Amino acid sequence: MRMYDIILKKRNGGELTKEEIEFVVNGYTKGEIPDYQVAALLMAIYFQKMNKRETADLTMAMVNSGEVVDLSAIEGIKVDKHSTGGVGDTTTLVLGPMVAAAGAPVAKMSGRGLGHTGGTIDKLESIRGFNTELPKEKFIENVNKIKLAVAGQTANLAPADKKLYALRDVTATVDNISLIASSIMSKKIAAGADAIVLDVKTGAGAFMKTLDDSFALAQEMVDIGTNVGRNTVAIVSDMDEPLGYAVGNALEVKEAIDTLKGQGPKDLYELCMTLGSYMLVLAKKANDVETARKILEDTIKTGAALNKFKEFVAAQGGDPQVIDNPDLLPKAQHVIEFKAEKSGYVNKIVAMEVGLAALVLGAGRETKESQIDLAVGVVLNKKVGDYVEKGEPLAYIHVNDLNKLKDCEERLRKAFEISDEKPAKRPLIFGVVTKDGIQRF
Amino acid sequence: MRMYDIILKKRNGGELTKEEIEFVVNGYTKGEIPDYQVAALLMAIYFQKMNKRETADLTMAMVNSGEVVDLSAIEGIKVDKHSTGGVGDTTTLVLGPMVAAAGAPVAKMSGRGLGHTGGTIDKLESIRGFNTELPKEKFIENVNKIKLAVAGQTANLAPADKKLYALRDVTATVDNISLIASSIMSKKIAAGADAIVLDVKTGAGAFMKTLDDSFALAQEMVDIGTNVGRNTVAIVSDMDEPLGYAVGNALEVKEAIDTLKGQGPKDLYELCMTLGSYMLVLAKKANDVETARKILEDTIKTGAALNKFKEFVAAQGGDPQVIDNPDLLPKAQHVIEFKAEKSGYVNKIVAMEVGLAALVLGAGRETKESQIDLAVGVVLNKKVGDYVEKGEPLAYIHVNDLNKLKDCEERLRKAFEISDEKPAKRPLIFGVVTKDGIQRF
Repeated sequence: MRMYDIILKKRNGGELTKEEIEFVVNGYTKGEIPDYQVAALLMAIYFQKMNKRETADLTMAMVNSGEVVDLSAIEGIKVDKHSTGGVGDTTTLVLGPMVAAAGAPVAKMSGRGLGHTGGTIDKLESIRGFNTELPKEKFIENVNKIKLAVAGQTANLAPADKKLYALRDVTATVDNISLIASSIMSKKIAAGADAIVLDVKTGAGAFMKTLDDSFALAQEMVDIGTNVGRNTVAIVSDMDEPLGYAVGNALEVKEAIDTLKGQGPKDLYELCMTLGSYMLVLAKKANDVETARKILEDTIKTGAALNKFKEFVAAQGGDPQVIDNPDLLPKAQHVIEFKAEKSGYVNKIVAMEVGLAALVLGAGRETKESQIDLAVGVVLNKKVGDYVEKGEPLAYIHVNDLNKLKDCEERLRKAFEISDEKPAKRPLIFGVVTKDGIQRF
Repeated sequence: MRMYDIILKKRNGGELTKEEIEFVVNGYTKGEIPDYQVAALLMAIYFQKMNKRETADLTMAMVNSGEVVDLSAIEGIKVDKHSTGGVGDTTTLVLGPMVAAAGAPVAKMSGRGLGHTGGTIDKLESIRGFNTELPKEKFIENVNKIKLAVAGQTANLAPADKKLYALRDVTATVDNISLIASSIMSKKIAAGADAIVLDVKTGAGAFMKTLDDSFALAQEMVDIGTNVGRNTVAIVSDMDEPLGYAVGNALEVKEAIDTLKGQGPKDLYELCMTLGSYMLVLAKKANDVETARKILEDTIKTGAALNKFKEFVAAQGGDPQVIDNPDLLPKAQHVIEFKAEKSGYVNKIVAMEVGLAALVLGAGRETKESQIDLAVGVVLNKKVGDYVEKGEPLAYIHVNDLNKLKDCEERLRKAFEISDEKPAKRPLIFGVVTKDGIQRF
């Protein structure tokens, strides 16, 4: 088998065999196939696409390029959840305790944030003492005991994906749906998931800007899951404005706690209910999403979810007092009002700009090496559709280094749009994709 | 300027500016832009194409990436001739003396053969004493004195093209017409040509297999020439069967001498007349091709062309006796008949296979490092349309190492097709492309 022939075949619109795909993925991971040949192949794939079979084979070849986490020692169906990345997305911190409280095991390997999107691991580390570097045995033990553990990705998961992604990133071959979908799915499958619930974000703050592209990506990932024997459901949810109010690590932890208390933002609560319901159904803890939702609502009402969060924090060495007293979380030295320059309805909040506003404060990483400031961030005071008086705060800026304030405010100015008329309400959840097809709400 | 943005722009169908093209070519030549980004761009160009302006800019950027030979010390308009490569193509050895004898300067930098196509430099070296490594001053002096010199490419001509071609060769991005055309034209322009006559081969033995592709390539090169101020004409000529009878270095020199004596193969003679006529017109030694042809025919009839060849050989240190006595050329130890297995008309001679038959004997190079055997090769005894009796020789194999005979015969068996009916005559020259457009014959 020759790499040249594989490039030529794809360039001419041919379908690559499983063996050819494995040859490419293994050869590239081992450094036997040079970057330039893979770059040419990726660009050919960009133009000629891959079909469902090729995409599934690519996914599994990337899974098998590294370690595959064995979670078989955990009882029950392990359902993983993945979001395609947004701004102020605190769902994992709410979902984990809720779903675990409902009896389904949550064994989550999570990443750190990069750029304008946050990472669950960073957020959890704002709870003092919290340890995200659990040894594998302890991770499994915790899930079996309390149904919930979250750890950083220490294993060598899908190294082919890592290498391919880095190459795509510099060769303008990122935005091909098969490549995006296989990249996401390979990591989830390598992390040991039996079933997967995906939250595909759509809108200005998301990777996929249009609804059609978002549904197409959702469908592609569900098809991969179906093809490789992992029950997969995808939600398409809004990321035009940020989710919830808080953007920043400790600030989002506080928001998650509020939500577990039943006092959180409505959109965050609603999205968690939807995602959680599908997780319970896939974990076979409920027969349908309606039943699942009732179970989840009960975990909030009875305080079971909040208690599960406490239990989880304690089990990983964190201070459970934080849950009763969120003032123990890191706090910024200054909280500055970001005021409306005119009265009117909030017509738009560009999520990406809010994310960048928090990033410049130090809430996120510009590069992998950047140090993160867990205390800082932005808390919205108004969301799309709210009325604001001139001079009333649109948001609160939690800041330590006041030199960064001006950049942050500039970003926020770009983020908010005020209009005289009340804008039409944008749905939070646009639809769901299962192996039976797309259902738009 | 960022390479990433340039790849993205071309991928999305954009038109690259002159500055962007120069950025890529210069950055790649200097090693500042990595192979993988250039490979991705080449594949994007394959799919999105380049327009005439981009192609001309690419050509000149490649020209300027290295040395540009200054032939201004040579009087008159320097017309270069280039063939896209074929089997048994001895035109340069005939054209050089003919055109020089007609008064136009021929200052030719030529290459060595690779694969199944021969190189003029190799052929000339079968004349004992012939020196192809002329210093620049001597090269120019010879052209001014006798109007003809041929030297190997010693200068660092269009290094960007060399590097890009090597990358295209391993990334399945060779067959894009803009890339092919700019590659050829950049080398000719860097070699100092004022005007260029191109012989675009078409058919089974050529790079371009179909007539439409061949005319498109011809048009593309003429457009580049026109765009960058080099008067350019392209002929599209047949390379379905080999040109002439001889394939092999010394064997082709003998055939060239025969042709200069007026006793050569009709197709070779005819092609040389056509190419030479355009050379004379571009060199302003004739007002039209009809007049030019008469001048050239006279150089054969009067022996002026043959004498010019002698003069040229002597001027470069070669033994001019070879011209009167071609038996002085290197000769193979064995001449083996390759016999027809049945009677009938020669319906087809696949030029590529004849080229490979000569290659396995040692007449060509498998790799750049291969040693060449100047004596060996194949001489056809029949051409397409000829009648052959069973047992009569179709070709003569000139061989030194008899171990190679079997491979050679196998190739020749694939090359010849015998049929009961006489095949329709295929034209030798299909048309001409000038800046005024395509004229099909």
